[in-house]
Parts: sequence; structure tokens; C-alpha cells
Amino acid sequence: MITYIDLPTNEDEETRLREYLEDVQPEDIAEYVSGLEDREEQIALIKFLEPEDAAIVFFELDDFSLVSDVLLSLPRWQAMAIATEIPNDDAADLLADMPDKARGRVLALFDDEARADIIELLGYEADTAGGLMTTEFVVVPAFVTAQKAIEMMRAFAPDAETIYYVYVIDGNSHLVGILSLRELIIAGPETAIADIMQTNVMSVNVQDDQEEIADLMTKYNFLAVPVVDDEEHIIGIITVDDIVDVIHEEATEDIYRMAGINESEDDEEPSVKGAYLARMPWLLITIFGELGSGIVLSGFQARLEQVVALAIFIPLLTGVAGNVGTQSSTVTVRGLAMGTLESGHALRIILRETTIGLALGVSVGLIVGGIGSFWQFPALGLAVGLTLVLNNLMASFMGTLVPLTFKRINVDPAVASAPFITTVVDITGLLNYTLIAAAILNI
Amino acid sequence: MITYIDLPTNEDEETRLREYLEDVQPEDIAEYVSGLEDREEQIALIKFLEPEDAAIVFFELDDFSLVSDVLLSLPRWQAMAIATEIPNDDAADLLADMPDKARGRVLALFDDEARADIIELLGYEADTAGGLMTTEFVVVPAFVTAQKAIEMMRAFAPDAETIYYVYVIDGNSHLVGILSLRELIIAGPETAIADIMQTNVMSVNVQDDQEEIADLMTKYNFLAVPVVDDEEHIIGIITVDDIVDVIHEEATEDIYRMAGINESEDDEEPSVKGAYLARMPWLLITIFGELGSGIVLSGFQARLEQVVALAIFIPLLTGVAGNVGTQSSTVTVRGLAMGTLESGHALRIILRETTIGLALGVSVGLIVGGIGSFWQFPALGLAVGLTLVLNNLMASFMGTLVPLTFKRINVDPAVASAPFITTVVDITGLLNYTLIAAAILNI
Repeated sequence: MITYIDLPTNEDEETRLREYLEDVQPEDIAEYVSGLEDREEQIALIKFLEPEDAAIVFFELDDFSLVSDVLLSLPRWQAMAIATEIPNDDAADLLADMPDKARGRVLALFDDEARADIIELLGYEADTAGGLMTTEFVVVPAFVTAQKAIEMMRAFAPDAETIYYVYVIDGNSHLVGILSLRELIIAGPETAIADIMQTNVMSVNVQDDQEEIADLMTKYNFLAVPVVDDEEHIIGIITVDDIVDVIHEEATEDIYRMAGINESEDDEEPSVKGAYLARMPWLLITIFGELGSGIVLSGFQARLEQVVALAIFIPLLTGVAGNVGTQSSTVTVRGLAMGTLESGHALRIILRETTIGLALGVSVGLIVGGIGSFWQFPALGLAVGLTLVLNNLMASFMGTLVPLTFKRINVDPAVASAPFITTVVDITGLLNYTLIAAAILNI
Repeated sequence: MITYIDLPTNEDEETRLREYLEDVQPEDIAEYVSGLEDREEQIALIKFLEPEDAAIVFFELDDFSLVSDVLLSLPRWQAMAIATEIPNDDAADLLADMPDKARGRVLALFDDEARADIIELLGYEADTAGGLMTTEFVVVPAFVTAQKAIEMMRAFAPDAETIYYVYVIDGNSHLVGILSLRELIIAGPETAIADIMQTNVMSVNVQDDQEEIADLMTKYNFLAVPVVDDEEHIIGIITVDDIVDVIHEEATEDIYRMAGINESEDDEEPSVKGAYLARMPWLLITIFGELGSGIVLSGFQARLEQVVALAIFIPLLTGVAGNVGTQSSTVTVRGLAMGTLESGHALRIILRETTIGLALGVSVGLIVGGIGSFWQFPALGLAVGLTLVLNNLMASFMGTLVPLTFKRINVDPAVASAPFITTVVDITGLLNYTLIAAAILNI
């Protein structure tokens, strides 16, 4: 971590700063730059970076206005040197949000080929294969030798973001094979590529969703996966480091959704208004659900008037059932997302969770039933204890059934979030309570 | 996906099966094998795999008893051929859980060097750098040329799990530099390694925790990171595909913890007893917390007797406050974990969340206050509405303050889970309700 950098005031200091910055990870420079309040100061510092480090800082900060401010205030040759170092996919991400005028001027800093690629990439949705892929990759024809392929790569490589896999094409630019750089290097120089390549190449379509791609790359441990168009021409690759970010993003989305926050609040720091809109729908569900709980209690009002001590245990009953329901739904939702649970084994999953729910219910019922008997009176303790057993059984059942059902009808199981499950189990739990209490207390 | 494989009954069918299996991804074979009920059938199928595919199937299935059953029932030459293909780190993971006797017999299938490495790896904790790393990596001395280095790699590479980075050492085996395979390939053949290597090498200590390593590799977009001992000797590397699994694992752990499930339920399918023990502690917190809510209500009992309709809104009040508190705590806990929020900016984070909480509170208060006025009577509607505004403000405040405080005192903020926050806001929320209701209803 960088704690403080003094901007240089003479040439000696400039040289020392450049030398210092060369030895620091550009990601750490990005962190430091993001902490600077003053735009002028940010620009001044970035000017002293090597072009390739500046490109990484741009990617890390992900701030298109900083990028246009820096590039458009630098001498043209220096701006072009930095632009050359920005991978096309990162450039497209940065340019996507730029106002049209700045975008045109920044695009002019790239060479013709890169510009054409960037404009193409700008046409894809950010969360699809097209939005994730880079157009910089290495292809070789199937008929050349390993030696020749290495020579071709020496010529290509300065433009390629990653060369860890080599893609093999036929005369029509169709993807026909793949080999790792490792396989290429250890092959005899005169071996034909066609003889050492693997022909079962897995690829993704340019319109595929990023979550599917992340799952695929996780499952098969790929470092990169080729992206093809509808005619099976290779048009890009997606590398595992971009997937690492997708995995974090998707986990955050799931975590948020489970807590009752819509994915629109997925940005790093959305506006208060954005956060309000992302959270309010779930509160509305809670309100109208819990008005249902209120209706259950108001039907019980005459009996509550007789034994008002019944009300004392309401928060405990709803709290515990909500807790147990959320535990079961979380395990089920996450298991379905990770592929460790399969919705085909629904019966086994439900049986397992309800067994756990029953065990928890009996324990909790005994403890609270005992406390309730001494604190208030035995019949009330018994009613509360029995209700807890039944409620926990039911909460674990609902917590498992609801996400499994959503999965079956192709709704994201994460919608079976804590607010949703909690509300459902509150209503049914209070209904159990009123019925059990009425029977046992004979009211 | 493979739907069905018939085991061969003659040589023709055997050849066809072998050819078919060569064209299928070993991860898909693993999936199919895991679905077979019969151990004999599993073994029979694995026997037809290429040794390197069998090794991947073993890794994917992560089932040590299958590994020993297969390896010890195969002819020794075939078992040794498979063993050669298992990367040392995977082998150590598989052997870790094997009974001593089987482990000794399986270890005997590896060559002397691999066996020594595996035994060393078995000594490290699974969730540390030592447990994640492989001992197969490529080092070259700083003084050789690029051409010579490529030749050395040709000789080494068949044993190296990944050669995407080349590590450079001095005469004392200290790590002094790094270069990517790409940089090596595009360098002129006669260039000295010392001239093209990067000298600011980031490494991790063999005892570092896997979560720290995942964060480091995510931040710096590394494909691999070297592992050093306390004397800075390079002893292994960790590759990004192992880190992808760690990221999924850590996200699951956080999700579980936030839902009130201890990390011991992190296994794919723990026993019912394990799940019970992982969830019960949080239920106990809920019980004793909500008994606190009960004490608040019992102090209010005389007034509840006068206006029993007050009880109707208790589930709504606790449900909404729990919901808002969980939303704020989730955003804070995840933001701290991802590094998008910094505990140093506590005041700004709290201000933002309480602003959102207040906005949500006013909306919810107006809606429920209005409904309450018509459904019951205006003074009760007013009391419930005002309580909702105050409770939501307080819930968002607590939901933010608690994880920030935990972070400050070095407790995992994820401990500020839904059950914990819900219970805290229930008690204070009901206290607010009793005070506001007593004042407005003049009881």
C-alpha cells in the first residue's frame, strides 16, 4: 500500500518518482489515486506512469470521466501510447458510459484495428459473453508445424492479452481445435498442429449469460474459453481473471437478493434513491404479509383479552420461525446455485431439512416451554413449547419447498429471500399458536 | 452431459468406448460416475479412461475411498500411470482423509520425488497457502538466456502443473524475479533472463490464510502466485483455478454466517447432527434475545389489557424492522468483505444507511399508519406509523453500526448476521412501540 506521494517539483524528483512507480504494483497506484480528492492531482500523478501501468490503473478505477480527462489533457503521443496498452475489452467497458463527444475523441487515440474491435465490443450487453470477451487472442491454422506456430505467436503476441491457449482454425475460420501453450512448447518442432491439438473444444456463444460462463469455467477449470458467433466462427475469448470478478458479482447479487435487496443495488455505491427503490419492494411484501399476521391475531382478539400474557411470546415465536426458515432456505438456495443440490432430489432435500427443523424445534420447544411454565404458568408454557415444535417443522419445510418450487418453475430461487420466507412463516406460525393456545388453555 | 454408458462386453465395444471417452470432458465423466450407485460399475468405467482423464475424475469426485478402491484394484502398471498424472496438490488432498493402511499402499504408486512432495504437502492445513499450493512449478536461474530457459522448460514441463509464469531464483534458491511465459516467448533468444524479469515479485507465506490469498489474487489479477517459506525460498505456487473454488467457498461461508449458520455446515452435505450443531447457537441467541422482547411486553401488560388491539401490529413491527436491519447489515458486511466499504469511513456509511432507513421508514409509516387508522382507530394508526419511522431509522443504524464495530475490534463482521440484528432491533423496536403507544393513547 502507498501512503503518500509528493508530486515532483524538479527533474531529479521526477526521475526518482518514475523509478519508484515502476517498482510498485499498478493496482496499488490505482488505490492511492482513488483516494486523492483533487482531479488535477490524479491526472498529474498518472502522467508519470509507464503507459502499461496507466492502462491498468484505468481498468482498476473504472472511472470513464477520469480516463477521458487524463487522455484528453496529455500530449497526443503520450495518450496514444497509453491507449495502445489498454486491452480492447477494458477499453470498451470504459468507453461505454462516456458522453458521445468525449468517446469520439478518445476513440481517435486508438489505431484503426483496435478502434474497429472496440466499436464492435460496445455493441454487446455488459453481462453477456460479448461484453466480457476480448478480441485479442491467438489463432493458428491447423496445417502448420509447432515451430511455425511459435514463430507466428512471437509476431502476434504483443497484441494478445493472453496466449495461454492457442486456438486452431480451418480454412473457413471455424474453430476446430485447441492446444495449451504448454503443449505447444513441449511438442517437437516439426510436429503438425493438427496432430497435437485437442478437437473437442468447448466454446460459448457470444450472447450467453455471464453467470452460465462462470459456472462452465468453474466446472471445467478453464483458464480461458473461446467465444463463437452463430456460425461457429471464433470472435473472442474470455479469460479466468474476468470470471473471478463475475463470481464475486454474482455472489453479491445472491447475497443481496436473499436479504431482500434487488440487484439494481449491485453497483459499488448506488444513490440513496437507487437503494430505496431496491429495498422498498421487499418491505411492501413484508407489510402486506404481516398485515395477514395481524388479521390472524385480530381474529384471536377476544381470547387475547382473556389471557394477555399470550402476547408476550409473539416476538419469540416469529423470531425463531423466521430464523429456522431462513436457515433452510439459505442452504437450499445456495446449494441449488452451486449445483451441490439438485431440484430432482427434492424429496430427499425436504426430508433432510425437516428432520433438522424438527430436532431444532424439539430442543427450542423444551427450553422455552420450561421457561414459559415458570415465568407465566404451565399451560401457557406447554402451548408455546408445542407451537415452537410445530412452527420449526413447518418453517424448515416452507424454507425448502419454496426455493425448490421456484427452481422448478424457472424463477431464481434466491427470490425465496429472508423477507419472503419470514413473512410466510410468521402468518402460519401465528395461526398455529392461536389454535394450539385456544385448545390447551381452553379459551 | 453424459446420459448413459453401456459397459463393453467384447473388444470392439471396448475400443469404441475408449474412443468415445477420449472426446468427452473428464469433468462430465466425473458427473456421470458420481451418479452410478454401484462401486464395481464406477471402477469398471474408470478403467477405460486415459490416465490423465482418470486423474481429473479423481480430483472432481473428491472421494478418497473411490480413489483407493480403483488404484488398488488395477494392475500395478496402470495404477502407476494414473498416479503419475495426479498433480501433487490434488493427491495430497485425496490422501489426507484416507485410512493409514490404504494411504501407504496408494503412496507406493507414486515415484520417489512425487511421494516426498505429497508427504510434505500433507503436513499443511487445508485452508492455508501450504494446503492450496502445488510443488510443481518452473524455476530458472537469473543468469541464463531466454533460449536456454525455453529449453529448460521443455525438459521440465511434463512435470509442471502450470508454466504460465516462470520464477527466477538466485544461487541460494531465493525468489528474485518473475516473468510470464508470454514475455519469455516474445523476448529475443539471446536476452538474459535477468534483463527481462520483473523484480518486484509478490509472494505469499506458506502459512497465509486462503481468504487473504484469494483477495490478493483477485486484486492483482494474478494467474498464479508463488509461495515462500520463512526464509523466502520458493516452495510452491497457487494457481487461479484453485482460487476460484476458494472464492465460491468463502462466499458460501459468508452467506451461511449471515443467515445464522456456522461455517462447520460448509461441507457439501453434512450430517443432520452437523447441521443441527451449526444452526442451534443462533437459535439460542434468538430465544434469549426474544425473551427480552417478552420482558418488554410483559412490562406493558397492563396497558395491553386495556387496548389489546396493540398486539395485532407486533408481528408487523418486528418483521419490518428486522427486514430493514438485515438489508443495512448485509450491504455493510458484503461491502467490508469486498473492500468497497472501508471501516475508516464509518460516519459516511452510517449516514448513508440511516438516510435510506429514514426514507423507507417514512414511506412504510404513512402506508401502515393509514391502514391502521381505518382498520382499528386513528390514534393506534398514528402510534404504529410513528413507531415504524423511528424503528426503521434505528434498525438501519444498528444494522450498520454493529458490523462496523465488529470490524474495528477484529471480529468477522458477518457475525452481525440476520438472527443477531433481528433480535437486537426487535427488543429496541418493541420498547419504542410501548413508549410511543403509551404516550399517544394516553394509557
